[in-house]
Amino acid sequence: MSEGSSVPSHRIAVLGATGFGGALCARLVDGHPSLELTVATARAEAGRRHDELYPRYGVGQALEQFDPDATAERADAALVAYPHKTAAAAVKQLRERGLKVVDLSADFRLDRASYERWYQPHQAPELLPEAVYGLPEAHRDEIKGASLVAGPGCNSTAALLATLPLRGRIDDGVFDIKAGVSGAGREATSETHYSSAAENVNAYKVEGHRHSAEVEQELGPGRFSFVTHLVPLDQGILATCYLTVPELERDEAMALYRDAYAAEPFVDVVDAAPHTRDVQDTNRCRVHVTVVGDRTIAFAAIDNLWKGAAGQAVQDLNLMLGLPETEGLA
Amino acid sequence: MSEGSSVPSHRIAVLGATGFGGALCARLVDGHPSLELTVATARAEAGRRHDELYPRYGVGQALEQFDPDATAERADAALVAYPHKTAAAAVKQLRERGLKVVDLSADFRLDRASYERWYQPHQAPELLPEAVYGLPEAHRDEIKGASLVAGPGCNSTAALLATLPLRGRIDDGVFDIKAGVSGAGREATSETHYSSAAENVNAYKVEGHRHSAEVEQELGPGRFSFVTHLVPLDQGILATCYLTVPELERDEAMALYRDAYAAEPFVDVVDAAPHTRDVQDTNRCRVHVTVVGDRTIAFAAIDNLWKGAAGQAVQDLNLMLGLPETEGLA
Amino acid sequence: MSEGSSVPSHRIAVLGATGFGGALCARLVDGHPSLELTVATARAEAGRRHDELYPRYGVGQALEQFDPDATAERADAALVAYPHKTAAAAVKQLRERGLKVVDLSADFRLDRASYERWYQPHQAPELLPEAVYGLPEAHRDEIKGASLVAGPGCNSTAALLATLPLRGRIDDGVFDIKAGVSGAGREATSETHYSSAAENVNAYKVEGHRHSAEVEQELGPGRFSFVTHLVPLDQGILATCYLTVPELERDEAMALYRDAYAAEPFVDVVDAAPHTRDVQDTNRCRVHVTVVGDRTIAFAAIDNLWKGAAGQAVQDLNLMLGLPETEGLA
Amino acid sequence: MSEGSSVPSHRIAVLGATGFGGALCARLVDGHPSLELTVATARAEAGRRHDELYPRYGVGQALEQFDPDATAERADAALVAYPHKTAAAAVKQLRERGLKVVDLSADFRLDRASYERWYQPHQAPELLPEAVYGLPEAHRDEIKGASLVAGPGCNSTAALLATLPLRGRIDDGVFDIKAGVSGAGREATSETHYSSAAENVNAYKVEGHRHSAEVEQELGPGRFSFVTHLVPLDQGILATCYLTVPELERDEAMALYRDAYAAEPFVDVVDAAPHTRDVQDTNRCRVHVTVVGDRTIAFAAIDNLWKGAAGQAVQDLNLMLGLPETEGLA
Repeated sequence: MSEGSSVPSHRIAVLGATGFGGALCARLVDGHPSLELTVATARAEAGRRHDELYPRYGVGQALEQFDPDATAERADAALVAYPHKTAAAAVKQLRERGLKVVDLSADFRLDRASYERWYQPHQAPELLPEAVYGLPEAHRDEIKGASLVAGPGCNSTAALLATLPLRGRIDDGVFDIKAGVSGAGREATSETHYSSAAENVNAYKVEGHRHSAEVEQELGPGRFSFVTHLVPLDQGILATCYLTVPELERDEAMALYRDAYAAEPFVDVVDAAPHTRDVQDTNRCRVHVTVVGDRTIAFAAIDNLWKGAAGQAVQDLNLMLGLPETEGLA
Repeated sequence: MSEGSSVPSHRIAVLGATGFGGALCARLVDGHPSLELTVATARAEAGRRHDELYPRYGVGQALEQFDPDATAERADAALVAYPHKTAAAAVKQLRERGLKVVDLSADFRLDRASYERWYQPHQAPELLPEAVYGLPEAHRDEIKGASLVAGPGCNSTAALLATLPLRGRIDDGVFDIKAGVSGAGREATSETHYSSAAENVNAYKVEGHRHSAEVEQELGPGRFSFVTHLVPLDQGILATCYLTVPELERDEAMALYRDAYAAEPFVDVVDAAPHTRDVQDTNRCRVHVTVVGDRTIAFAAIDNLWKGAAGQAVQDLNLMLGLPETEGLA
Repeated sequence: MSEGSSVPSHRIAVLGATGFGGALCARLVDGHPSLELTVATARAEAGRRHDELYPRYGVGQALEQFDPDATAERADAALVAYPHKTAAAAVKQLRERGLKVVDLSADFRLDRASYERWYQPHQAPELLPEAVYGLPEAHRDEIKGASLVAGPGCNSTAALLATLPLRGRIDDGVFDIKAGVSGAGREATSETHYSSAAENVNAYKVEGHRHSAEVEQELGPGRFSFVTHLVPLDQGILATCYLTVPELERDEAMALYRDAYAAEPFVDVVDAAPHTRDVQDTNRCRVHVTVVGDRTIAFAAIDNLWKGAAGQAVQDLNLMLGLPETEGLA
Repeated sequence: MSEGSSVPSHRIAVLGATGFGGALCARLVDGHPSLELTVATARAEAGRRHDELYPRYGVGQALEQFDPDATAERADAALVAYPHKTAAAAVKQLRERGLKVVDLSADFRLDRASYERWYQPHQAPELLPEAVYGLPEAHRDEIKGASLVAGPGCNSTAALLATLPLRGRIDDGVFDIKAGVSGAGREATSETHYSSAAENVNAYKVEGHRHSAEVEQELGPGRFSFVTHLVPLDQGILATCYLTVPELERDEAMALYRDAYAAEPFVDVVDAAPHTRDVQDTNRCRVHVTVVGDRTIAFAAIDNLWKGAAGQAVQDLNLMLGLPETEGLA
């Protein structure tokens, strides 16, 4: 919390504050005028300071092992940036102690059947009824009243923001996603090695990416294809969406998008195909739509760590806590 | 030509040897056991040696202004790496003097009507009847007998190699192309500035890329969408193709591809989505096909300067001159 | 200026707001709680909005042609981000109209003789006596009282912050600078083309880089070598300095640096060689010093656009205006 | 070996053919007109084909576990691309069976005392007397007669080629090395993660890099500093060397370098500071020297995997086997 502010401050815990998404959560909370970072957890790196690992973020908070009781004593709400499966158990412990939670994992994004088809047996299915899908552009009012919000997947966020204004009208959709390397996480693997990822583009999970389940859940069923590609940049996602939308003309499409997003604080409808560089290190999404022949082509560019993860989680938290939606995200 | 070889050597001119594609043409000709680089032309940089501009290629040839008579005296065939429109006039001068030509521009790829719709009035329409589209995997026999071959566009090459085995069966196709910056050419522009292109992905020419005309010409008419994207790598193209092919199952698709390309010296059908890095600085194309739900998804990865331009031009030239198709390209 | 603030606001003009440094100046002023961006100038791009060119910065200000009278009416101070030589004339016009100025060019960094040796005849030598070299870590008090401050060169800033604690004790110094491509400016050239700059490292201006004059001016005369290298990153400078400092031991060196920078808000003395990534998009400088054998080796990492240009200019402006030094730069 | 050649072929084993250096060794041997790749070893990846791991290299050889007897049956000479310490034991087994060996590790580069100071107890000290330091530009005749050659370190190769013409005259030397990420090896670590290495420059092993021992061994003792930096490129090293050489003028320096390297097949003395891009994927070294004030500044650019490792190893092997020195490396 800023020095000298008289605004009542909410005490926030960030679980898993050393992964790329969690680290940015910690930074955003730490720099937020109405939030106070009181707990930041890590496993192997507990005992170190956050800014030893992420100097650029300038967060002096000490990292500690997660303890649900200690967390509940010192925090009113939590951002959980654990891998899926691990997340559910921690979320349960926090919810049992009364904390509001935004979970960045996949654990509370889907209904149980869908989750268990794409992931594994659910570790806390009893919480699913209260969970809200945390895309403010689709579920703002529910998020405001929620105690448990599931932060959308980064690829899903881009795909959905590119297409939401056409929900219910899409007969056929191809979602071609280009995503930067930070989306693959902080773990060092042969895929994330600089000498693999630089000067390279490739598709992965071609037979079915789990984020597609979120797209179907939000858009309704359809003939959808969803393929993600790794491209050599650090932060950024571009979703290119090829849609069959009967009887949609370009002017109508553009008007629909402008109307749908006119009041959205983080979505810009732009006149040309967006560049990921133009949203880097911001919580913004730039959307463009056109119709070529009888195909509607829509684009969305986001920063996967911001609007695709930590930024959106703080946006959700602002809504849950009754704060201005954009606070701490400018 | 290699020292000490007794192979009869063909004398080759490279026009426009300072652009990215032309420079590699010069290198490939220079290192080719049965070809001799006798002429390399440039405009602003005439008078310098090729290896002053491209040290890595190690070509000592002096650059000179293009003169059709002088070229005809010293060369039996030519690779023309001029921009479209400029190319047609030079090709005409060379053909009038009896040289065999591979033209890397768009000028002889399309029929006149299609060319003039996408480009401008044709500068040498009388040559169009003799021009052959230089994709060996589709037109090998015609190339062998041709005196004028039009090197396919780099994006078209990738799109076509990803889909040719399904020609005639594709009801609907989305071609999502990711291309490296060298494809934008050697000219310094705001788009090719490192501080624009690094950490960025964007689509361009969304309303219609001229390479799509080649795809339609080769695949036959269809409901096709073709969108190219600039990604931050130097050399490489990945084409991701989303196809509606009635009654095609995965096993059949894979078998079709393996059969179609079994004898192709430069096309590998692989078991997983290809990486552009795996073909970098080679004339190879790696192709993968699968069927997910009722959508056929096919990929091709090439190096845009090799199989997408200079390498394919030399492959064409080998065929036209009766040389082994792979000579000088291993 | 932030909504609802009661802080008295200073009206600021940014001249040359479309180059990389000037664009960031505009963003920093626009987001600064005590400053108001009232004028942003451009030449070719006058008439457009800043955020059309730099969407990521989110500055809605319209760009206009520079007019000294109009600027003086609407601004109390200015940041001038023109190329050297052009800058001096504009600075003169602004100073004549009473505006405080931070000039980011080289025009007021050096004494006249030194300037004219490295650059050209000075366009406003009468202003040199009032100009202060804008490195707060060396000249904070003078900056506070100044009306004209010369923002240091980006390479000089890194070299000086790496070595200032040893000023007067350095017998011999080698300054090896590694700088990102944004330092070469927004102009598209063969050097800044992605296909030249990626996968490349090279030295430039080996026979004498003009920033070395600043180093000699600030450190005093010595046997100094100063070589800059272009490395394939967008923003960042690492200075590696190899110094002969008689009778300096490692512990003393580290203590000297810690003492020298203990109160500095933007300089961190760290225990290991710094990474440019750790200061990216921040106004921080990370410094490390060690002694190996009888050579003192000192490092400084900065973001060339922030601490090397726009960030430092705002830091200077804060000092000149009596604002907290770090305001708007956190 | 090429089809149809009548040249007598040497059978070559590559040990450790899956690391970056070893993989390129396999490719270079496989494409070499007078060598035949008969054995390629790996540990975890034994059983796979080389081109499954490195498709771009197009080597069809099956990978197998190392067995000294089987290797000796099928190979006349070996390139050993193991990590140091591991290498010595394998080299010993091969030498006992009569194979000529080029070892790419550090194990046979230094005398025992120096080796054990920088590394660990030597595993095969009895072989040290027969080992020759494999820098052809310094030890060509000894390499020709050797049975065991130690491939120089990549950083040392660049530093030495930049300075050898001044051997014996250098009073003081600073070797500032900028090296690409492939030099850090194929292992995935936090340092080689794309999201660490991209947009970053940092020094490492500041207190003493082991390659400096090679420099001192070859140049003779001196006041030398040697600092290596990681820069965001895949393949390439630039050595910038700041030297105090009494009474050396620029013209003499340039003449000395031109004379020293006039007959060298892989070293080019150039008129301006070299670019690593200009030697990428080649076995060439580009060297430049100048004198600024009383400091001699010399540069060398190499590809760390070629002239810094595999290419140089094949160059050594050519010399040992009486083949043309440049064969297979053009």
